[in-house]
Amino acid sequence: MKGRKNMPIDFSKYIASYPDFPEPGILFRDISPLLENGEVYRAATDKIVDFAKERNVQMIVGPEARGFIVGCPVAYKLGVGFSPARKKNKLPGETIEESYGLEYGKSSLYLRTNAVKPGQRVLVTDDLLATGGTIDATIRLVEKLGGIVVGTAFLIELSDLKGREKVKDYDFFTLLKY
Amino acid sequence: MKGRKNMPIDFSKYIASYPDFPEPGILFRDISPLLENGEVYRAATDKIVDFAKERNVQMIVGPEARGFIVGCPVAYKLGVGFSPARKKNKLPGETIEESYGLEYGKSSLYLRTNAVKPGQRVLVTDDLLATGGTIDATIRLVEKLGGIVVGTAFLIELSDLKGREKVKDYDFFTLLKY
Repeated sequence: MKGRKNMPIDFSKYIASYPDFPEPGILFRDISPLLENGEVYRAATDKIVDFAKERNVQMIVGPEARGFIVGCPVAYKLGVGFSPARKKNKLPGETIEESYGLEYGKSSLYLRTNAVKPGQRVLVTDDLLATGGTIDATIRLVEKLGGIVVGTAFLIELSDLKGREKVKDYDFFTLLKY
Repeated sequence: MKGRKNMPIDFSKYIASYPDFPEPGILFRDISPLLENGEVYRAATDKIVDFAKERNVQMIVGPEARGFIVGCPVAYKLGVGFSPARKKNKLPGETIEESYGLEYGKSSLYLRTNAVKPGQRVLVTDDLLATGGTIDATIRLVEKLGGIVVGTAFLIELSDLKGREKVKDYDFFTLLKY
């Protein structure tokens, strides 16, 4: 990007596409090239930071594992905490559980009961919105603890899979849409 | 922490300890309270940022999944890329593999062949140094691609488990030591 500092970044150039991964019939949109370019990763993060600032976000929760990559630098920039929504047997101590159907498979997510305080304004982040099962479970975890989900933020939305319907009651940000 | 801005943070207050998790005999040191406090998470990150700046880090690699939580905000602050070292079937496209013994179990880690460029100065991050198996595999992945590991950084070192011996050839940072 050298010498073109004032040009807006075309983020779509930094998404790779892999047919039939991880299973036949799935077209996998890979954020790795975006993450591996420091300038592009920072610019993408800053878009979510702007979205979060407008909503006075006090806490970020992201599901395992790419939700950490999206949410953690936003938390750092805002100076707010981050709590990971994790799979079974990953979080010690007292946790709550919500189950969900994945684009491929079925699973549960867990959150520490101390992760979110009642009334706290929470941003939920993930890399990609597909059918919305993961983000829906994450939202339910936050709300079960009394948190207020003031926004959901993604790098990629796969609009054909209609995940947006699952988050239609929440402010929504996506960097890219396919 | 309000009204005590000039007091150094006692990070150890933000680590929880759980005996017999995830298996009997393991004392699990949990970074969740540190992450959930925005001021403390930021201050911990800034310590690693300082360590990285002194070494002119150009790229960060962290193993799944807590290595992302530690490395991603450092990458953001430095304006460098981040590439996740992941478990089997998580990364699409061309990858390289290194196997390792865990504190409890055995596994492999994978890295994209494009993640690191030859000669690139790489910081490797994880939340916790135990036996050093995970970080050793991550270092081998980076070096296989021609990257120069200029440092390893952790939030916690469990010194009894002697993981430091596995990384003795590398500059080392840990926030806390048990």
